[in-house]
Amino acid sequence: MLKRGAKIGIIGGGQLGRMLALAAYNLGFKTEIFEPQNNCPASLVSNTHICADYDDINSLTEFAQNCDIVTFEFENIPIKAARIIEENANLYPNSKSLELTQDRLVEKNFIKTCNLECAPFFEINSLEDLQSAITKAGTPCILKTRRMGYDGKGQFVIKTPDDAQKAWDEIGQNPAIIEGFVKFDFETSIILTRAIDGQIVFYPNSQNIHENGILRTCIVPAPLNEKQIAKAQEIGAKIANELNYVGTLAVELFVGDEIVVNEIAPRVHNSGHWTIEGTATSQFINHIRAICGLPLGNTEICAPKIEMQNLLGDEILSIPELLKSPNTYPHDYGKNEIKAGRKMGHVTRLIK
Amino acid sequence: MLKRGAKIGIIGGGQLGRMLALAAYNLGFKTEIFEPQNNCPASLVSNTHICADYDDINSLTEFAQNCDIVTFEFENIPIKAARIIEENANLYPNSKSLELTQDRLVEKNFIKTCNLECAPFFEINSLEDLQSAITKAGTPCILKTRRMGYDGKGQFVIKTPDDAQKAWDEIGQNPAIIEGFVKFDFETSIILTRAIDGQIVFYPNSQNIHENGILRTCIVPAPLNEKQIAKAQEIGAKIANELNYVGTLAVELFVGDEIVVNEIAPRVHNSGHWTIEGTATSQFINHIRAICGLPLGNTEICAPKIEMQNLLGDEILSIPELLKSPNTYPHDYGKNEIKAGRKMGHVTRLIK
Repeated sequence: MLKRGAKIGIIGGGQLGRMLALAAYNLGFKTEIFEPQNNCPASLVSNTHICADYDDINSLTEFAQNCDIVTFEFENIPIKAARIIEENANLYPNSKSLELTQDRLVEKNFIKTCNLECAPFFEINSLEDLQSAITKAGTPCILKTRRMGYDGKGQFVIKTPDDAQKAWDEIGQNPAIIEGFVKFDFETSIILTRAIDGQIVFYPNSQNIHENGILRTCIVPAPLNEKQIAKAQEIGAKIANELNYVGTLAVELFVGDEIVVNEIAPRVHNSGHWTIEGTATSQFINHIRAICGLPLGNTEICAPKIEMQNLLGDEILSIPELLKSPNTYPHDYGKNEIKAGRKMGHVTRLIK
Repeated sequence: MLKRGAKIGIIGGGQLGRMLALAAYNLGFKTEIFEPQNNCPASLVSNTHICADYDDINSLTEFAQNCDIVTFEFENIPIKAARIIEENANLYPNSKSLELTQDRLVEKNFIKTCNLECAPFFEINSLEDLQSAITKAGTPCILKTRRMGYDGKGQFVIKTPDDAQKAWDEIGQNPAIIEGFVKFDFETSIILTRAIDGQIVFYPNSQNIHENGILRTCIVPAPLNEKQIAKAQEIGAKIANELNYVGTLAVELFVGDEIVVNEIAPRVHNSGHWTIEGTATSQFINHIRAICGLPLGNTEICAPKIEMQNLLGDEILSIPELLKSPNTYPHDYGKNEIKAGRKMGHVTRLIK
């Protein structure tokens, strides 16, 4: 259990790191960010910021030695960097969680070893692989780079076999997978926090609505029946236990006749931002409590219906207007540059 | 209305400043603290900290010029310093609120000009004044320094006229007042936020229980009937309007056959910490919204019953134990040194 005033290191300086740092302050902890970019959302609130690259071994070592514990807010940390951190500090979740989720092919294979359902998938290393996979998967199907994709980037929806060359070029001919199309009614996620001793708390599920590959809206509760909720929790627990996971974990799911795993995020997740005002203990606070060896908080919902919307691009300028409505909680991540489609903030509404 | 990413200056670096800074970060603002002490609760979370004394004109000027707006978290700022700030930035609340509340005699006279009830009081400049006042006020009565007292410091309860010399020496023979004893059933406070345009929102009242002059426990709701609540709100509004106040204001009240004003605090207040988890918009967030020219948030209560307890001295070490209970929200202010009776944190429980 971490002592009073301990320093929590967070790898990655985006809004997830920012909200983790703010959660850490409630309990009197200090925060240090490791992030190559300056003036990022998290470093705008953290005590200190090591502004260095992920191949800077000295800085990584210094960071890990400065901190009493280390966590991360994004999964595309080079494994070599994560291992250097682990040599010098406790890293929660561990580097195995990163290894198994930062490569889509490795992730899909891991899901299969857990005896869970995911989209049919094929390994793609060449145009020939791609053409063959399209035949097996059928169309439409999705070409995704194995590494570094997020928020719809590094993906190409293939509508006919003629799209193959264009798709292959579009993703830079990088190692990839083809995912077969999964028929579903809606998308949800299972968010949970797992403690060092293995205890798990689950969050209520949200219905997650995407546009152009980016999460747009969450509606809580999701239209799941009890059996489906139990299944979603079973999936989350299975993955968390297999990883010996510590902290908050999110698994994105397709809901149709079956519940099918889409992606695993070994971190706090956009589809859980509503938990800040919407549940008894947010995903961020429980993540901090878990990695610090403190008891987990309960996760009951605070209103019968809750909505979260991302504020993209210049939607961030609508905050003064949003604040006119009751039970409305806009968040601004402090990003200087407004770009179309960029996640600038979010707003949660409790409908009481 | 303050622009995105603006910098809010907070004079004073204690836990109230810390919680104001954390509130400011939700909306993407930056924070700078002006505080003579280093490593204080607020500077442990703020972006920057000007560590200088209140007579350091250059530092005060630099601070005010750095910030887009300035507020404060404690009222004993030398008026000269407040005026220097006001020459260089918008100060909310204004320096008049400081002037009228940092001297107990001035404050009592102000309360009378508002046609409000307060304890009978007498100006004390000498032992002779004191002896005469004790005769008029009766015993018990309380000797309080006019300036710089808080949390029971700079006070002496006079039980018999023989206490006069000891009391006078105990408070360092400083300019003082005698307050006559007020018979009351319990103590409460009225906390409100007033916007730049004069709109006011009120918070539910807490019953405030003190020990040794320090607030120990708040119980919400306070056992006030509707008429008493209306009276308390009338008192708060009267004072806020007279001061043309902007921000969160707290007025401590004695509740008996009448409601009598005890003290005015031109700032967020210990008896309002429970509002963080206990109402729709905390006293801290509404203070930030008010001074930034943003709409005020609603203040409905989130549970039928709420308790707040201060964590004094080594009680702060009980946080891991407290976290085992549901709907329990401990806060640690990050103060390094544990001293008996020192406000180290607080814990709020929502009883659902």
